[in-house]
Amino acid sequence: MLTRIDHVGIACRDLDAKIAFYESAFGLTVASIEVNEAQGVREAMMHVADGPAGSSYVQLLEPTGPDTPVGRFLERRGEGVHHVGYGVTNVTAALAAMGAAGIRLIDERPRHGSMGASIAFLHPADIGGVLTELVQAPVTPESR
Amino acid sequence: MLTRIDHVGIACRDLDAKIAFYESAFGLTVASIEVNEAQGVREAMMHVADGPAGSSYVQLLEPTGPDTPVGRFLERRGEGVHHVGYGVTNVTAALAAMGAAGIRLIDERPRHGSMGASIAFLHPADIGGVLTELVQAPVTPESR
Repeated sequence: MLTRIDHVGIACRDLDAKIAFYESAFGLTVASIEVNEAQGVREAMMHVADGPAGSSYVQLLEPTGPDTPVGRFLERRGEGVHHVGYGVTNVTAALAAMGAAGIRLIDERPRHGSMGASIAFLHPADIGGVLTELVQAPVTPESR
Repeated sequence: MLTRIDHVGIACRDLDAKIAFYESAFGLTVASIEVNEAQGVREAMMHVADGPAGSSYVQLLEPTGPDTPVGRFLERRGEGVHHVGYGVTNVTAALAAMGAAGIRLIDERPRHGSMGASIAFLHPADIGGVLTELVQAPVTPESR
């Protein structure tokens, strides 16, 4: 079902400072920086590695304001790991399987994620406190 | 510096129940179950994917008692992501580089991790609240 660890999503207060840190200390490179208004975040995908099922990233998340999911997370927990994203081949099929398994879905239908991906979140209460994201990578010219 | 996301370490209260969940809901398979007395955990490595730099896992961690790092984490934060482990080619060299970069080292020298790996932890306060582990996979017959 899960094809890879797509990314670890990390909540931070200062995106530019954290990008600089992950570049200088760990040698990661920026794959994209985007604002996702629907999720209330400015985010950077820091490339870690490529694999047969796709790449993996550290995703740095800065809230666009305090009254956003990541803003409330920072207020409650401070900086740290916010969620884990796993690759799936077909996010719609994966959501149906998760729902059938009794896992509560935060997203009943896929929505837009980083770098053109289709994503959906599963409820952490059913997954041992881990906010879990399913990620279907976009169809690229090379993967068609 | 970092070659892959080696694992996401997840603290839980009931290892066997969580293993069963990750098997049935996500289709992961158990690669190993070990007790690490030095770290005070019983742990399962759930295989997610293989890549050119090594495999990646969900690491489920159940404390052997309340007065252990994971036991205290559960008391303070509840179940959830405990740390992130990244692959490195040479953990001793990586530790030296991290120390030179001013990151506080929890482990000055590598110690034994899951499945024969050499590992070391870096202090979360210097990495935006993320307890970070460096993992050098053991030399296997195939990789010699």
